[in-house]
Amino acid sequence: MFRNQYDTDVTTWSPAGRLFQVEYAMEAVKQGSAAIGLRSKTHVVLATVNKANSELSSHQKKIFKADDHIGVAIAGLTADGRVLSKYLRSECINYGFTYESKLPVGRLVVQLADKAQVCTQRSWKRPYGVGLLVAGLDESGAHLYYNCPSGNYFEYQAFAIGSRSQAAKTYLERKFEKFMSSSREDLIKDALFAIKETLQGEELTSSICTVAVVGVEEPFQIIDQKTIHDLIESLEPKEEAPAPAADQGAAMQEDRSPEVAPMDI
Amino acid sequence: MFRNQYDTDVTTWSPAGRLFQVEYAMEAVKQGSAAIGLRSKTHVVLATVNKANSELSSHQKKIFKADDHIGVAIAGLTADGRVLSKYLRSECINYGFTYESKLPVGRLVVQLADKAQVCTQRSWKRPYGVGLLVAGLDESGAHLYYNCPSGNYFEYQAFAIGSRSQAAKTYLERKFEKFMSSSREDLIKDALFAIKETLQGEELTSSICTVAVVGVEEPFQIIDQKTIHDLIESLEPKEEAPAPAADQGAAMQEDRSPEVAPMDI
Amino acid sequence: MFRNQYDTDVTTWSPAGRLFQVEYAMEAVKQGSAAIGLRSKTHVVLATVNKANSELSSHQKKIFKADDHIGVAIAGLTADGRVLSKYLRSECINYGFTYESKLPVGRLVVQLADKAQVCTQRSWKRPYGVGLLVAGLDESGAHLYYNCPSGNYFEYQAFAIGSRSQAAKTYLERKFEKFMSSSREDLIKDALFAIKETLQGEELTSSICTVAVVGVEEPFQIIDQKTIHDLIESLEPKEEAPAPAADQGAAMQEDRSPEVAPMDI
Amino acid sequence: MFRNQYDTDVTTWSPAGRLFQVEYAMEAVKQGSAAIGLRSKTHVVLATVNKANSELSSHQKKIFKADDHIGVAIAGLTADGRVLSKYLRSECINYGFTYESKLPVGRLVVQLADKAQVCTQRSWKRPYGVGLLVAGLDESGAHLYYNCPSGNYFEYQAFAIGSRSQAAKTYLERKFEKFMSSSREDLIKDALFAIKETLQGEELTSSICTVAVVGVEEPFQIIDQKTIHDLIESLEPKEEAPAPAADQGAAMQEDRSPEVAPMDI
Amino acid sequence: MFRNQYDTDVTTWSPAGRLFQVEYAMEAVKQGSAAIGLRSKTHVVLATVNKANSELSSHQKKIFKADDHIGVAIAGLTADGRVLSKYLRSECINYGFTYESKLPVGRLVVQLADKAQVCTQRSWKRPYGVGLLVAGLDESGAHLYYNCPSGNYFEYQAFAIGSRSQAAKTYLERKFEKFMSSSREDLIKDALFAIKETLQGEELTSSICTVAVVGVEEPFQIIDQKTIHDLIESLEPKEEAPAPAADQGAAMQEDRSPEVAPMDI
Amino acid sequence: MFRNQYDTDVTTWSPAGRLFQVEYAMEAVKQGSAAIGLRSKTHVVLATVNKANSELSSHQKKIFKADDHIGVAIAGLTADGRVLSKYLRSECINYGFTYESKLPVGRLVVQLADKAQVCTQRSWKRPYGVGLLVAGLDESGAHLYYNCPSGNYFEYQAFAIGSRSQAAKTYLERKFEKFMSSSREDLIKDALFAIKETLQGEELTSSICTVAVVGVEEPFQIIDQKTIHDLIESLEPKEEAPAPAADQGAAMQEDRSPEVAPMDI
Amino acid sequence: MFRNQYDTDVTTWSPAGRLFQVEYAMEAVKQGSAAIGLRSKTHVVLATVNKANSELSSHQKKIFKADDHIGVAIAGLTADGRVLSKYLRSECINYGFTYESKLPVGRLVVQLADKAQVCTQRSWKRPYGVGLLVAGLDESGAHLYYNCPSGNYFEYQAFAIGSRSQAAKTYLERKFEKFMSSSREDLIKDALFAIKETLQGEELTSSICTVAVVGVEEPFQIIDQKTIHDLIESLEPKEEAPAPAADQGAAMQEDRSPEVAPMDI
Repeated sequence: MFRNQYDTDVTTWSPAGRLFQVEYAMEAVKQGSAAIGLRSKTHVVLATVNKANSELSSHQKKIFKADDHIGVAIAGLTADGRVLSKYLRSECINYGFTYESKLPVGRLVVQLADKAQVCTQRSWKRPYGVGLLVAGLDESGAHLYYNCPSGNYFEYQAFAIGSRSQAAKTYLERKFEKFMSSSREDLIKDALFAIKETLQGEELTSSICTVAVVGVEEPFQIIDQKTIHDLIESLEPKEEAPAPAADQGAAMQEDRSPEVAPMDI
Repeated sequence: MFRNQYDTDVTTWSPAGRLFQVEYAMEAVKQGSAAIGLRSKTHVVLATVNKANSELSSHQKKIFKADDHIGVAIAGLTADGRVLSKYLRSECINYGFTYESKLPVGRLVVQLADKAQVCTQRSWKRPYGVGLLVAGLDESGAHLYYNCPSGNYFEYQAFAIGSRSQAAKTYLERKFEKFMSSSREDLIKDALFAIKETLQGEELTSSICTVAVVGVEEPFQIIDQKTIHDLIESLEPKEEAPAPAADQGAAMQEDRSPEVAPMDI
Repeated sequence: MFRNQYDTDVTTWSPAGRLFQVEYAMEAVKQGSAAIGLRSKTHVVLATVNKANSELSSHQKKIFKADDHIGVAIAGLTADGRVLSKYLRSECINYGFTYESKLPVGRLVVQLADKAQVCTQRSWKRPYGVGLLVAGLDESGAHLYYNCPSGNYFEYQAFAIGSRSQAAKTYLERKFEKFMSSSREDLIKDALFAIKETLQGEELTSSICTVAVVGVEEPFQIIDQKTIHDLIESLEPKEEAPAPAADQGAAMQEDRSPEVAPMDI
Repeated sequence: MFRNQYDTDVTTWSPAGRLFQVEYAMEAVKQGSAAIGLRSKTHVVLATVNKANSELSSHQKKIFKADDHIGVAIAGLTADGRVLSKYLRSECINYGFTYESKLPVGRLVVQLADKAQVCTQRSWKRPYGVGLLVAGLDESGAHLYYNCPSGNYFEYQAFAIGSRSQAAKTYLERKFEKFMSSSREDLIKDALFAIKETLQGEELTSSICTVAVVGVEEPFQIIDQKTIHDLIESLEPKEEAPAPAADQGAAMQEDRSPEVAPMDI
Repeated sequence: MFRNQYDTDVTTWSPAGRLFQVEYAMEAVKQGSAAIGLRSKTHVVLATVNKANSELSSHQKKIFKADDHIGVAIAGLTADGRVLSKYLRSECINYGFTYESKLPVGRLVVQLADKAQVCTQRSWKRPYGVGLLVAGLDESGAHLYYNCPSGNYFEYQAFAIGSRSQAAKTYLERKFEKFMSSSREDLIKDALFAIKETLQGEELTSSICTVAVVGVEEPFQIIDQKTIHDLIESLEPKEEAPAPAADQGAAMQEDRSPEVAPMDI
Repeated sequence: MFRNQYDTDVTTWSPAGRLFQVEYAMEAVKQGSAAIGLRSKTHVVLATVNKANSELSSHQKKIFKADDHIGVAIAGLTADGRVLSKYLRSECINYGFTYESKLPVGRLVVQLADKAQVCTQRSWKRPYGVGLLVAGLDESGAHLYYNCPSGNYFEYQAFAIGSRSQAAKTYLERKFEKFMSSSREDLIKDALFAIKETLQGEELTSSICTVAVVGVEEPFQIIDQKTIHDLIESLEPKEEAPAPAADQGAAMQEDRSPEVAPMDI
Repeated sequence: MFRNQYDTDVTTWSPAGRLFQVEYAMEAVKQGSAAIGLRSKTHVVLATVNKANSELSSHQKKIFKADDHIGVAIAGLTADGRVLSKYLRSECINYGFTYESKLPVGRLVVQLADKAQVCTQRSWKRPYGVGLLVAGLDESGAHLYYNCPSGNYFEYQAFAIGSRSQAAKTYLERKFEKFMSSSREDLIKDALFAIKETLQGEELTSSICTVAVVGVEEPFQIIDQKTIHDLIESLEPKEEAPAPAADQGAAMQEDRSPEVAPMDI
């Protein structure tokens, strides 16, 4: 109630020292379809849910390549995410041209965060409504970052964002200790399991998810659908028991937004 | 009610992470007269309903050529659509001049989407109020895209937008599996059937629709009215039974806007 | 009531996808004194009602020449119309200077429409409050266009805009089929009949209307008052029965604005 | 009441297609002290009421020379009028310097009107609050124009603006038919009679009015007070009967503003 | 009440054609301490009340020299007055440098008025809150002008502005007829009498007023306090009877503002 | 209540001709800790109360050197004061560099006042929230000025600003007549007595005040704490009786703000 | 209640002379996780609490190196802090490049404060929402500063900011007298004790805090986790008795914000 007085302009602080417009932009990430990322010592895997709007359409692209050694998965406003991934691409090209070497992942992530911060301090813009999982490999190893609309970023061992991502996070927390030494294939399988968690009983098929990988001697690439299909098949025997009803209830409670948000978030 | 606090400025997020002004702009597409697109391996067909305001006037142009290999059909604010199609034209010319080759369709679509995204993040502009079906043929084959006011785009096998487009979408979903291998003529016929669906019993005549095609060895062109007339004649025997009343009721329920919106959308 | 929340800024969409400020600007056209246009294969005729404010003043100029082959008649805010016709004039001159040929009518109309569209998408401007009937002759023949404050344009066989234009439109719809083959004189006479319709029983005299013509081997010119006077005289025998009362009632109902609006629209 | 929602910003249209802020600026003209103009074939006379604020002050200048062949009389915000007359002066000088001939009156009037129109379409400015009677003589003869805050202009045989101008207009309408063939002296006398009408019984003296004339072989000049004094003396025998009470009552009803408005309009 | 809807922005007209923000700025002049000016054929005298805020401070400067032949006295916001007098100074220097002659007083006054007018037509500025009495001597003789926040200016024989200036105006109106032929000393004495009138019975001393003079062969200068002291002494015998109570009451009624306004006006 | 309609924007005049936002900024000066200044013929002394926020911190700097001959003491927003003193410093350096002489104190004070005035006339800035006591010595002797957020300045013999400054002003008014002939040491002692008055019974120690001096052959310097300590010791015998309770009550009544304002004013 | 009228825009003063938006930004610092700093004659130590959001993520960086001799610890909006520390870094590099010496700490702190002040005086920006503890060593010794969102800065012997910092401040106040002569190791231990105070009974481990040091012949560096671990182990024997309940209650009362604020402050 009082809250509403301070929440229509990104340059207005609330009496408690909060910027509500930035927090609302962070809500947009929660409305987008889920994206997950996880890494071993040598590889980083990104995966997204990509349900198409209808039989007639392809799904929206949610994973973008920035350079041979860096890619991103997004959740939230796809248009904002596409514009930011274009920025990443051009930063990588410029760096490569100037220094004849690869842009370190951490450095790119900071530039991206700085770009997002600017939109939280000007009255005539709005914060970006998208979260980005940045996967990259550089001389310091494999990295997974999360860039938030607030201009913050975090390094993660594994992370999940977007709609119903809580279930995926729970899965990743239970398993993450073994990720560092995982093989490339195990990492991808775990990504698929995590994605499965966000589907709430819906069947996981190769047509509703995208998986990408970057690793030592393996440039960033989206894995072809056939391979994903085979991997999903191979998961079956290992399949976990269905999440108990209580758990589902919680996940559903979290999930107040319709399946596909009006802006195709 | 609460919703109204956050829906007058495109740079204001709602507490739930939505941009209502962008969603309202998407409503403008639904108010425009219908446009449909569909493609085979070798051809893309666009069709629009073009009812003239009165006997005295020609209809408004809803299909624009961007280049020999690309054209668009619009639904929503015609003026916005015309300005954007002019942008497409100039991008094609510039690319051709610089690279002496044809601008790939997907690339043009992304540029168009980026231009739309900018208007969703500045306080002194408004989002475009028009949806565009982009039909094109390049080295990677025939393509059909839908560009949305939100700055998103989607690739489609077949799609319909605008007023009473739901009936056309239903038709296209029933038939789309055969489109890939359709002949040019069958594709055009299916376009006419789809357009017919949006007319709710009104007679389809060559004077109230425009059809365009682009294909292998066939530059983008609007098909002359005589040919359309003959094709419509030829449809008659095959004509489907009228949509059952229930179906019509649904279509009508969807259709709350007057036949011709005040801004000639 | 709800409507009022979204109707004070041209960059604000209503929840139903409408731009009320643009629609309100279109109302301004309806407040202006009537303008009509009609064309044959070889000629286009424009006519306006030009009642002077008082015996002491000349009437306001409502018909402007853009070039030898193009002229416009306006309804709505005269000042906006004059500024736009000045723009048309300078575009014609620039084109002639650059290409040493005449600017095609359709091309000029699109440029005019684009200029109007810009004013529907910026928060610090307002849409133009004037409608323009553009009459022109080029290699593709005689043309009549209507340019609307929304940034839209339409090609017409014959059209009427402004205050009490409905009666004129009814007249034109009844007669338009013969216009294409009309002689120059018949076209002008029909223009005078149409203008007469908007006067609601008031006598038509050469002092309260302006008529202009452009045609094959005839540059755009305003016809001198003597000729108009003689033509009006010659109309008498052919004069139609007075519009029936019911018809008049309808016209009057439409006409809620005072004879001369405060801004001399 | 509803009206008030649309009347604080010049870029906001009312639902009926009106720009209230422009209309309000036109009210400012009515608040200013009266100005009148009239013309014969060879001369134009301007006259204004110039009551000084107090015995101690001179009156405000209400008539300005733009060039040898053009002058203006203003009613409304004097400061706005002065700034605009400065603009006229500089336009005349620039034209003379460039073309070595005199700027045609009609052309200057259009430029002035265009300058006024700009202020009716930008959110960060306000319309000018002044009306200008432009008197000039060029190759096409003697001219009298009225430039309005709306960006409109009108050519007049004779006209009166400002506070209590209705009485003067009535006088001018009664007499105007003979003005075209009037001598210079008769024109000035009629100007004085018209000014007298606006005084509502107050005595006309040379100290409360200014009269200027431009004519064939007579550059624009303000007539010296002695001459005016003698002319007023000479008027006495011919003096008309006092306007009947009813007439005065009407004039007073019109006159709701104080004698001297707060901004020295 | 209705009034309040139109009085917060200088670019908003009221329905009656008034600019309230400009009128409010004119109120600021009335809040400032009094300033008076009067002139003979050869001299102009300016005088201000300069009560210091406390025993500890000097008074604020209210009279400024612009050039050897021009000076100003201000009433209202002192800071605004100082900035404007700085502008006057620089205009005089520039003119002298360019033309090697003295800037005519009337011309400077117009430039000052134009500068003030600009602040009455832009939404992001405010009108100046200061009135200036401009005293000057040029080839056309001695001049006294009053420049108002509205962008208007007036030439005066004698004038008084600021707090309780009405009493001084009454005095000046009673005496002004003899000013033209007054000697320099008589003019200064009349200035002191006028200042005395604004003090409402408070004793006039050399420490609470400043007097300046400009005249033939006498550059603009502030008269030293000793001379003023002696002149005040010499006034005593001639002292007028105290203003009658009724008169004082009126003056006090006018004077609703505290002695020293919060902004040291 | 009515007042509140006009007090949120610095460019909005109140109907009574006041700029409330400027007056509110002047309140900020009253919230700051006290600063005092006083001068003899040869010296100027500045003193401020500098209570540290906690034992752990040093106090905020409240006295700044602008040049060898000029220094300032501030009360109000420290950050605003620091930025302005930086401006003073750079003006002194530029002047010295250009003219190879010292910037006269009065001239610097005017430049500072002009800079403050600008912030009272633009809608996108706010007035500075700080008062500055400027102490300086130049060819015309020793000077003490007070620069106010309103863009005004005053020359003072002695002055006190900030929280509870009334008591100090009372002290200075009682003593100021002897200041002109005071020795440097007596001036400093009087500064300490004045500061003591603002402490309301709290003990004066060298750690809670800063004293600076500029004088003939003595560049501006802050006096070291040891010297202040010894001076305070030496004051004891002469100490005045405590201010009577009534007096204290008044001072406390004045003092509605907490000891340390939230912005460390 | 009245307060709310003046607290949505940083350029609006409240009637009491306060800038609420700046005060609200200062609240953001209190919401951030705690940061502490303390110094001896030769060393400065910074320490922050760095709880990761989840097991999967690394913690956010709260300590930044600006140069070999300067580093900062932040509390509040991390994105704002990162952008400001980047500014510090570039200022240090520029200074070193220009002067070939190290930028004095005090000078850098003033530049930082000036940058923050600008954001408190422009309507289209917001104040930074971060507090910075700046630790540095230069020719004048070891320094610890606190830079506040208001544009103020303070030098401290030891200080704590952020969530639950009161307990740490109490600890530092009890001990600070011995800090000046502390060894590097004792300083770090005291930093750890202070951090422990902010944890309210939660165990202090090397994984939830970061400690950095800069000192004579020791460039600014973050101490590796192993060393911190060993130091924490070594603290145990010396551990203080738990803070009494009353004390904890106070601390909790202060602490109204959740553990991790929505913007990862």
